[in-house]
Amino acid sequence: MRILGIDPGLQKTGWGVIESAGSTLRFLACGRITSDAAQDVPARLAAIDRGLSAVVEAWSPDEAAVEQIFVNANPASAMKLGLARGVALCVPARAGLFVGEYPANTVKKSIVGAGHAAKVQIGAMVRVLLPACGVVSADEADALAIAICHAHHVGVRRQGIALIL
Amino acid sequence: MRILGIDPGLQKTGWGVIESAGSTLRFLACGRITSDAAQDVPARLAAIDRGLSAVVEAWSPDEAAVEQIFVNANPASAMKLGLARGVALCVPARAGLFVGEYPANTVKKSIVGAGHAAKVQIGAMVRVLLPACGVVSADEADALAIAICHAHHVGVRRQGIALIL
Repeated sequence: MRILGIDPGLQKTGWGVIESAGSTLRFLACGRITSDAAQDVPARLAAIDRGLSAVVEAWSPDEAAVEQIFVNANPASAMKLGLARGVALCVPARAGLFVGEYPANTVKKSIVGAGHAAKVQIGAMVRVLLPACGVVSADEADALAIAICHAHHVGVRRQGIALIL
Repeated sequence: MRILGIDPGLQKTGWGVIESAGSTLRFLACGRITSDAAQDVPARLAAIDRGLSAVVEAWSPDEAAVEQIFVNANPASAMKLGLARGVALCVPARAGLFVGEYPANTVKKSIVGAGHAAKVQIGAMVRVLLPACGVVSADEADALAIAICHAHHVGVRRQGIALIL
């Protein structure tokens, strides 16, 4: 199964595509969509939409996953975060993909084994799990981590179905 | 100029299209996009996207306007509101339209003349300003009010340019 992980942000949206077959994971691609801070918010959201749509078209993922952002910031900041997240959830769903959502702690646990891992640990473990990815930015590492987390959950989901059958 | 006003919400997204020529306003169409609460959030956002994209295609507006939601709710609710708003800002911007954003008080002032008008007053004044719209739902009335507000601001913008020239 081919999985697209997305780490959404108005300024920088990281994305990563992996192939998962059983417990084997393989890196396919990753990148970052940056929006021009000089443009107004609607135009910046449209740039994220265009960028993610191009990724979906180029890599034809089977499913997608986006981190559930927990915000204890003020409502105005939460609203701003929601704008980019809305577009990130919408683009793969529009293409007919199932989109998994995972809390940050679940993503960290499935990569590092602990729910409170530091950013640098995530990056290091992503490189261990997907050696072909090489050196990636923090946004790309986060996006790949979300894709890996989804791959683990899909595995559990399938085992569950097998047991029921 | 043809203006699309949008009142975004995950459950119900109102839209309205008006034609503005100088100080004359004309009702063209309005409607409501509802999403299925039984579906997951990404699928519901995709439904809003599809609905608004169809409106943009059918009515070919020149510009769009969306209300700036002021949230003093908790950050989780603000984030949820942001998701639908992100899609509502993105769809017309993706089609190359300028998207105006107006605080709720500015919208109310431009319709009723006061910044703290009740919902029912907005609906009544929208029917006075656009008699052809008939009886509309609150979401549709809000969307038409946003479009009217944008028309007023475009008028001011143009007069400003004329004065400078």
